[in-house]
Amino acid sequence: MNAARRINKKIAIAGSTGLVGRTMLKILEERRYVFDEIRLFASEKSSGSTQQYLGTNLLVETLGEDSFNGIDFVLFSAGGGASRKFAPIAAKKGCIVIDNSSAWRMEPDVPLVVPEVNPKAAAGHKGIIANPNCSTIQLVVAMKPIHDEFRLKRLIISTYQSISGAGQKGIDRLMNEIENPRGLDETAPIAFNTGFHPFEGDEGFTVEEIKMKNEIRKIFGTDDLNIAVTCVRLPILGGHAESINFETREPFDVGDLRHLIDKNPNVVLMDDTENNIYPTPKIAGDTDLVYAGRIRRDDSAENAGYIWVVADNLRKGAATNAVQILELLIEKDYTKFNSI
Amino acid sequence: MNAARRINKKIAIAGSTGLVGRTMLKILEERRYVFDEIRLFASEKSSGSTQQYLGTNLLVETLGEDSFNGIDFVLFSAGGGASRKFAPIAAKKGCIVIDNSSAWRMEPDVPLVVPEVNPKAAAGHKGIIANPNCSTIQLVVAMKPIHDEFRLKRLIISTYQSISGAGQKGIDRLMNEIENPRGLDETAPIAFNTGFHPFEGDEGFTVEEIKMKNEIRKIFGTDDLNIAVTCVRLPILGGHAESINFETREPFDVGDLRHLIDKNPNVVLMDDTENNIYPTPKIAGDTDLVYAGRIRRDDSAENAGYIWVVADNLRKGAATNAVQILELLIEKDYTKFNSI
Repeated sequence: MNAARRINKKIAIAGSTGLVGRTMLKILEERRYVFDEIRLFASEKSSGSTQQYLGTNLLVETLGEDSFNGIDFVLFSAGGGASRKFAPIAAKKGCIVIDNSSAWRMEPDVPLVVPEVNPKAAAGHKGIIANPNCSTIQLVVAMKPIHDEFRLKRLIISTYQSISGAGQKGIDRLMNEIENPRGLDETAPIAFNTGFHPFEGDEGFTVEEIKMKNEIRKIFGTDDLNIAVTCVRLPILGGHAESINFETREPFDVGDLRHLIDKNPNVVLMDDTENNIYPTPKIAGDTDLVYAGRIRRDDSAENAGYIWVVADNLRKGAATNAVQILELLIEKDYTKFNSI
Repeated sequence: MNAARRINKKIAIAGSTGLVGRTMLKILEERRYVFDEIRLFASEKSSGSTQQYLGTNLLVETLGEDSFNGIDFVLFSAGGGASRKFAPIAAKKGCIVIDNSSAWRMEPDVPLVVPEVNPKAAAGHKGIIANPNCSTIQLVVAMKPIHDEFRLKRLIISTYQSISGAGQKGIDRLMNEIENPRGLDETAPIAFNTGFHPFEGDEGFTVEEIKMKNEIRKIFGTDDLNIAVTCVRLPILGGHAESINFETREPFDVGDLRHLIDKNPNVVLMDDTENNIYPTPKIAGDTDLVYAGRIRRDDSAENAGYIWVVADNLRKGAATNAVQILELLIEKDYTKFNSI
């Protein structure tokens, strides 16, 4: 166990009783951060309950306009509506919002940050920093060294996503369907089936697919990366996997590519198919790392290859990345800002 | 219920007690075929048991060299080893083998047939006709009209495959893991996880991926179709889904493409995302059709698009297709042959 680490800041978690909010609190606790103050906010329904942090009981309060008075940082995971409403209020009060919703991600003034990938983007924030979508984060972490070295030209992505992306209610529904097979009579069960995220717009894409396309380009800071993506929800409790086919502008050697991945401290290379070694959601579960394997040459196009990328969607895909943004802001002292 | 249909042929099922063999018998029964004789063969272990067919009990006999005496057709699903050994013996005795294993699929003298796609290939058989891999069949059925009209140039496939592809033992293992979560302690559970088929060769591909690449080209009769494929096994009891990105040589209109799919009697178009209508393994289950949806333009490459294809892997992906080959041979009288 790490020794406790003192941080002279006041922090809050908004949406602390949700699946991501609980994981945020757990990750801060694992890292044994002792803050000057830590406050928890949720909807009125959860108000008055308590959550443990390093052996003490913290009271959950109702999220409101006054929640941010005197708070330095708020980790926000209370849904897009709450983020849209409260993030500017918090920022105006001098509180830096690290927002896990999609509400602010594509705003030009809001940095979209994965600390291992584009830390400098955080420098110019105006009080709101967006945490990317889970499936975006693991992809950009794995592909960053490939992009830097060989310049990505096109990504064709099919995802294999855990139902925990739908929150505790998604997990409860899956387990309920498994325990009560009659629930499977409905047309779109989660158990033993595939599903899609909600659709948006008239071109047949889901919100998740649109997020991935936009966010990958914003994080890599490029407009000329072509992205094709199909996102699929599966009866998996935790962990997202991605089947990624990529094309680069520069020719690459598969061995060099494996070496690049292997020397990336943020990625665990598990790529020895002769010995059945490859990443799975089970292996990535409860860790903060991104796993890569099944790296192969694809001879069906020029400079093309395959990679299989897995991570815990609630941790590196959400809560851990938000905590890492907090750590980055404190370490680099990116704490002064002009509010939006 | 259909009326019984008399077919003056003697048929056998080899491997009748396995998951595919049982489904073959069930499909013949659903179609109410009354044959001059129907015999069931399996390994010695199952010998002496009985299986029902249209209200009568059929005895399961041990598969051996004499099993094919006087038999016109054998539907073979007893594993690659048994097919390699017994198919030539059967063919020499004048018995036509419709083989569900991968043993003979890539032999130049052996037609690889999906009746809706390449029926004429069956004409020149030499006593052995191969039934393609489950994931191949549903893809070629859905893509055939697109290939005919716009010429496929490249396919980038990621599959979502049911564990029933591993037979009854795959299903039993999944259900056992779900009921006994301690089984999940192992590193590669099926439940709540992703998995891969066995690996083959030193380029990191699985046997399933290699089959798909080779078989699609053989069925379409083309060498200049580029194929990239990643096959994934999932905790789904029945039904395979495929996320397919395609590029054509001729430009297409998405509306035309939907129309082509819709008028194909072998494919059910379910593509109305605004009303949450798309195919799933649950919907395709226990049917003999191929389902297609999520047809979209992909602006990340020239003449590119997406399609999501689903079918029941034990039925259209295996047993139904074998029965349809049998029907084709009888209907077209492709019954004379010179044995290999």
